Amino acid sequence: MVIAASSPWVYISDIAGHDGKEITLKGWLYNKRSSGKIRFLQIRDGTGIIQCVAAKGAVSDDIFDLSDKITQESSIIVTGKVRRDARSAGGFELDVTDLKLVHAAKDYPIAPKEHGVGFLMEQRHLWLRSSRQHAILKIRSEIIRAIREYFDSNGFVMLDAPIFTPAACEGTSTLFETKYFDQKAFLTQSGQLYMEAGAMAFGRVYCFGPTFRAEKSKTRRHLTEFWMIEPEMAYFELKEDMDLAEDFVSYVVGKVVERKKKEFELLGRDIFKLQAVQKPFPRITYDEAIRILKDKGASISWGDDFGGDEETIISQKFDRPVMIHRYPAKCKAFYMKNDPANPTLALNFDMIAPEGYGEIIGGGQREDDYDTLVKKIDEHRLPQQAFEWYLDLRRFGTVPHAGFGLGIERTVAWLCSIAHVRETIPFPRLLDKIVP
Amino acid sequence: MVIAASSPWVYISDIAGHDGKEITLKGWLYNKRSSGKIRFLQIRDGTGIIQCVAAKGAVSDDIFDLSDKITQESSIIVTGKVRRDARSAGGFELDVTDLKLVHAAKDYPIAPKEHGVGFLMEQRHLWLRSSRQHAILKIRSEIIRAIREYFDSNGFVMLDAPIFTPAACEGTSTLFETKYFDQKAFLTQSGQLYMEAGAMAFGRVYCFGPTFRAEKSKTRRHLTEFWMIEPEMAYFELKEDMDLAEDFVSYVVGKVVERKKKEFELLGRDIFKLQAVQKPFPRITYDEAIRILKDKGASISWGDDFGGDEETIISQKFDRPVMIHRYPAKCKAFYMKNDPANPTLALNFDMIAPEGYGEIIGGGQREDDYDTLVKKIDEHRLPQQAFEWYLDLRRFGTVPHAGFGLGIERTVAWLCSIAHVRETIPFPRLLDKIVP
Repeated sequence: MVIAASSPWVYISDIAGHDGKEITLKGWLYNKRSSGKIRFLQIRDGTGIIQCVAAKGAVSDDIFDLSDKITQESSIIVTGKVRRDARSAGGFELDVTDLKLVHAAKDYPIAPKEHGVGFLMEQRHLWLRSSRQHAILKIRSEIIRAIREYFDSNGFVMLDAPIFTPAACEGTSTLFETKYFDQKAFLTQSGQLYMEAGAMAFGRVYCFGPTFRAEKSKTRRHLTEFWMIEPEMAYFELKEDMDLAEDFVSYVVGKVVERKKKEFELLGRDIFKLQAVQKPFPRITYDEAIRILKDKGASISWGDDFGGDEETIISQKFDRPVMIHRYPAKCKAFYMKNDPANPTLALNFDMIAPEGYGEIIGGGQREDDYDTLVKKIDEHRLPQQAFEWYLDLRRFGTVPHAGFGLGIERTVAWLCSIAHVRETIPFPRLLDKIVP
Repeated sequence: MVIAASSPWVYISDIAGHDGKEITLKGWLYNKRSSGKIRFLQIRDGTGIIQCVAAKGAVSDDIFDLSDKITQESSIIVTGKVRRDARSAGGFELDVTDLKLVHAAKDYPIAPKEHGVGFLMEQRHLWLRSSRQHAILKIRSEIIRAIREYFDSNGFVMLDAPIFTPAACEGTSTLFETKYFDQKAFLTQSGQLYMEAGAMAFGRVYCFGPTFRAEKSKTRRHLTEFWMIEPEMAYFELKEDMDLAEDFVSYVVGKVVERKKKEFELLGRDIFKLQAVQKPFPRITYDEAIRILKDKGASISWGDDFGGDEETIISQKFDRPVMIHRYPAKCKAFYMKNDPANPTLALNFDMIAPEGYGEIIGGGQREDDYDTLVKKIDEHRLPQQAFEWYLDLRRFGTVPHAGFGLGIERTVAWLCSIAHVRETIPFPRLLDKIVP
């Protein structure tokens, strides 16, 4: 069998523990170069890349010949002796003693040169093998890990929200619909309403799952399928909600920067900017945000919601995320609680990432009064029948409560400093893209 | 404001750190009883339940009156002194000094008595508040945490698979379809094909997300929406795949039993049976499974796939999960590799939970040869065009690889000893159920 090898199989990420020993790597040829009677093979195995050195005379002629002819992305099993080498990127090289070809790749489509993004997106299943995509997706994996770690170690219960929903949370124009046996169902846009039921049961809950928006616009910030983390807390008001959001974001950014230095370096990311993400974050009211925008000459009026351009202008005033709170209630969804001090305002907040990466969090305090909520459902022309279970939460022991949602892909885009969200998820889904 | 309290807000789960001190709880009335001039209030806050004692004379008449009249599931803020009490379930009680009603619940529909499951399912948003549902869903949350912990600490990269897919992985009869702008898309049934691309890029990957099956049958084991964890590993063959599966399952069961003792106790779960889940797990071939079934008088022929009844019979022979490997190839999906030693068999395995809880894992080694895979796609009458990207994985550096999928809800059902999967997920989706 092709896998059999005389020495133990080791992953490149674990190589430091095998200095001076003979080991076997199983991977693919990432790149190679020649220098006289030596062939330098860059081997990747998914956990890292290492330079393997095959010298004529030190290996059999067959093996040297193979090291000469092997093509990019061919799969190979390499045996050799681990040698510490300070000049090497990973600190180690491998002196080849044996080489087995598993499969010869012919004409691998992604050569080590510049390709257009359209082409690369069509080759997404192969593009994932490149160093840059590795760095981005390992950072994504770490962001998600740190997020769960934060909530799991702070008393939250993970409660999956359903994907199939009977009613729309925020309007119906951007919903994906599916036939559900004899009924129809919509794909969720947010788990929030379910998390409110969860918060009344468990105090503090979160869901983490895919959400869907049939956005007809092609922008660099929108995917049709994206992942959201949505915590919801009983007995929290707007202030505690914002306190939690800043504590959470500064924790996640701190952990990811600490654990993924190599990946940020590969991306050329200035991590000093990320190290500035310490709480407290600035908090400004919507009114103050309007004043900032007007000072900068933006054509905006009180009552307008903010788009990407406005968010960028505001973000440039600060070196860390900024929270804008108390938007005009009429911009916001029916479930937002109005500010008792000024009922034209909602007790909501958005968190805007620095450096122009836009809104990463939207959240706020929920309407907890039965009569007010019924009135709002009516004002938003939503069918009360569909919300009877949600109204139950106000019939039976209602309490002040709040929560927020953080979009994973926008967070990845910000931390990795990527202009377009399509590289922030393994298999992006866009208006015109569901393959591969 | 209703939230203001004179002493610090403490969660019931943290009460032990406040012995002898005055604290404030924010929660709901779970139950109460009277004894002469004392009212015993069982207060829940999502993290636990504590008995609060209001004694006439020790509190004002207004407060005593409130403690007397308060109804089930009313939301209340209680201030009092923490007192260690060995007779109490949680080890502590609270001597009430103040009580504030946040909201009076009237006629809470789930009284502390027996209700039919149909009724409780309609009240799922409230049913979540019951102790039994708490125990089940906290165990679910812990299972998911332990699963991620296992893969995150064993060199795997988390790689989300897409939900919208253009092609079916295993037949089209049970697919949910949605209009996707000018195209159509199907909701994923498995992330496996995408994880194969991921394994070629990262070596070891996993996805964790919802998957969908439009099963028209009503059974106690099927949901239309369920969560799966799917690891996939390059350079793994069937044996290593089974080694990983047993190591993984014994780790998860061990951690969950260790961390959720109280919850298992509440459910009356015999955890000795779970403590037996130690590796190695028994491994039998399909042929041996057929012999066991025939010995027990089951009417089964070589070539038949196993249903719930057969799985139950086999599981009763063992005190821990059993892995059945090498099924007839014709029972299995096109991507399964055939056994070179006997090409009528697939290099697959199923893991059957003990105590009759059925299949929890399906997995195996994937076909890695281009020509063979093309032939299989053709034999299964699948459109080759849709699988060109998947065939690329065999064109460019193909390697032996394997993986598996574990269903979360069946795992929860097994560990919690629940007959029907509907209680294993916060908001179950069934043939006739998408509300609430």
